[in-house]
Amino acid sequence: MMVKNAESHFREIFESFSKIGLDKGRGITRLAYTREEEEARFALIKLSENLGFKVRKDQAGNLWIRKEGSDSRLPAVLVGSHLDTVPQGGAYDGALGVLLGFECMRQLSEEGFSHRHPIELVAFAGEESSRFNIATIGSKILTGKLDAEALKTAKDKQGITIYQALKELGYDPDDLPRLDVSKYKAFLELHIEQNDVLEKENLQIGIVEKIAAPIRARLELRGVEAHSGACPMGERHDALAAAAEVILAVEKAGNKEKDHQTVTTVGQCIVRPGAMNVVPGYTELLIDIRGVEKESILRAYEEIKESSSAIAEKRDIRLTFDLLSSESPAKLDFEILNVIETICIEKKIPYKRMNSGAGHDCMNLAPLIPTGLIFVPSKGGISHNKDEFTEYRDIYAGAEVLKEAIKVLSV
Amino acid sequence: MMVKNAESHFREIFESFSKIGLDKGRGITRLAYTREEEEARFALIKLSENLGFKVRKDQAGNLWIRKEGSDSRLPAVLVGSHLDTVPQGGAYDGALGVLLGFECMRQLSEEGFSHRHPIELVAFAGEESSRFNIATIGSKILTGKLDAEALKTAKDKQGITIYQALKELGYDPDDLPRLDVSKYKAFLELHIEQNDVLEKENLQIGIVEKIAAPIRARLELRGVEAHSGACPMGERHDALAAAAEVILAVEKAGNKEKDHQTVTTVGQCIVRPGAMNVVPGYTELLIDIRGVEKESILRAYEEIKESSSAIAEKRDIRLTFDLLSSESPAKLDFEILNVIETICIEKKIPYKRMNSGAGHDCMNLAPLIPTGLIFVPSKGGISHNKDEFTEYRDIYAGAEVLKEAIKVLSV
Repeated sequence: MMVKNAESHFREIFESFSKIGLDKGRGITRLAYTREEEEARFALIKLSENLGFKVRKDQAGNLWIRKEGSDSRLPAVLVGSHLDTVPQGGAYDGALGVLLGFECMRQLSEEGFSHRHPIELVAFAGEESSRFNIATIGSKILTGKLDAEALKTAKDKQGITIYQALKELGYDPDDLPRLDVSKYKAFLELHIEQNDVLEKENLQIGIVEKIAAPIRARLELRGVEAHSGACPMGERHDALAAAAEVILAVEKAGNKEKDHQTVTTVGQCIVRPGAMNVVPGYTELLIDIRGVEKESILRAYEEIKESSSAIAEKRDIRLTFDLLSSESPAKLDFEILNVIETICIEKKIPYKRMNSGAGHDCMNLAPLIPTGLIFVPSKGGISHNKDEFTEYRDIYAGAEVLKEAIKVLSV
Repeated sequence: MMVKNAESHFREIFESFSKIGLDKGRGITRLAYTREEEEARFALIKLSENLGFKVRKDQAGNLWIRKEGSDSRLPAVLVGSHLDTVPQGGAYDGALGVLLGFECMRQLSEEGFSHRHPIELVAFAGEESSRFNIATIGSKILTGKLDAEALKTAKDKQGITIYQALKELGYDPDDLPRLDVSKYKAFLELHIEQNDVLEKENLQIGIVEKIAAPIRARLELRGVEAHSGACPMGERHDALAAAAEVILAVEKAGNKEKDHQTVTTVGQCIVRPGAMNVVPGYTELLIDIRGVEKESILRAYEEIKESSSAIAEKRDIRLTFDLLSSESPAKLDFEILNVIETICIEKKIPYKRMNSGAGHDCMNLAPLIPTGLIFVPSKGGISHNKDEFTEYRDIYAGAEVLKEAIKVLSV
């Protein structure tokens, strides 16, 4: 467990980060590639420089903080997560992993822990998809899944591309970084669970085996705008009524794949013109499909696509179905899982092996570097929300496991 | 029929009004109580003053233009409609009735037509509900259906009340006008049909017998915001999926009342937070129910209310169901209808008696003053849209009927 002094030290840092991007009492809005996210990076740079760690930012906005080992030619043990949030999100999703990683490095430094392998912390940029409809941007760039062209395509609601957003913050999106896998021995991410499985089972640690992968689509329905009083029911091509059928078809597709842990969500529905007295002529839906089994995700996707077509045809409405992204579920490293599990057993910290429904930066690194993902509980399973909360005793248990894993791997 | 000279005169005026509030090639945006609507009033005042008509604006923004008869103590024959539009609407809905009324007065003046009763034109303010979710604001104020308190409650998307909007334009909402019914003999409104019944049956005039009345409601659904990847299907309280069921229940309620010409519409669906990776925690729906039979409207309303409650209960979602307004269908005056019908027969203009699905300012006056409503065709039934269109030959047929009715009633 962290000693009392370390606890209050961490608490102070964590609370100061919880104020960056505060959104009028409605949580934290620290969106991908905004000044607020950048401010969080600056704050961490300042803390790192005070401790004499080596600091580096790459041109994708990822922040790297390094503590050299006795042999700097050896591959490093990498830890980290992200600093951005969803709109009006919580203080824990992402930031907790970065700040606990930093706290572990600080403690190891203070304790004079001797290690051969360098220890490195990364704060990935743009993990949340809320702004650009693309998740884990920083780690995707790093692992070659997003190039400069793709960054010119993805836009936020104001029409700003990732490419432009990077430039505005002073990064050079024409000089994107690539991860040199030979330089890293392992990657460890600590994150809140974003579900209530650990809480319900009274466990403190989740050791993740597989991470669900998202398929994302944007769907546009174009009907005929009409007067809500004058246009008879039988003559309508109501884009919102069609969208309603699609929303329920999406839900149904998810329910059918329940046993495979696949989930389906319509997160946004935009209506035009959106007036009391006009039958809607246009709707746009954002669809998110996730699971740990590729076949199940694809079945849900195909069913949604087919249902949407059938609904559009039946109602004589024009449908555009854009596949935005399609990723594969990730498997975490078996040996790293064993290291973590052994630590939990030895330290008598109640844990379980589990899967992650949410995507994380580590899923991009997992195919390239031996990777582990550690969960701590989320109160009530609440996440992406200002009421996101994790008890300090669970946070400290997470820190203990993470620190011990770093020690085992870097020694 | 209008003579060639009068036709080109009217065309010029109509086209100049079609430019007021032009919205980047997407139609006309001349919302209730905005500078654009005010600009249209100014343009009409200028035209009226050129012809020596008496001009008056009341404190609700309604514009009155009067041509005295030989006996100014006699009640006036009132004609008119409205000058505001929906967002990105057409040039015909409202403005056509006002400008044709004005054209009739101009022609009668030019022809030196002698009449005992004064002839008066009214351009009602704020007929469309798009901005404040309340329709026919100007004529409602005039007929005592809206008071200053109500004007302080209704807000637009920016939170501006009707009361504030009136003040900002220089009106005094604490000195609201009331119609002195003893001063009016009849009211005639000419309007586009906003449906394609006349076009399909190759008719030029619709003589309206009944006007459908709207019941309007706002519905809020509060579920639980959750992570779209981490929250299992079975544990969701998805406010958008619930809204989708409600939207389809609203459509179903309308379909069941089809034979009674009742129509039901969800015109808006707002989702919060509205992000790709968040299960929506909140949705708001705007519901519009209309018909010419009060019992049928109420049946649809009750069914929608019951279905919504059942859906919310089933999904364990909090429901707020606000009734915004409830109006009664209006009956037009039997004698005025006969006057109009006789004119159509004599002039061999193909017509039919019909009902109006859309609400109009005249429905507020109908219980107080003998009132008639004349429809001209809408191409393709398109309305509340930039593609709204009526052929000039149909407009001129409408002008002929309107002018003759004014003559018969004012002589």
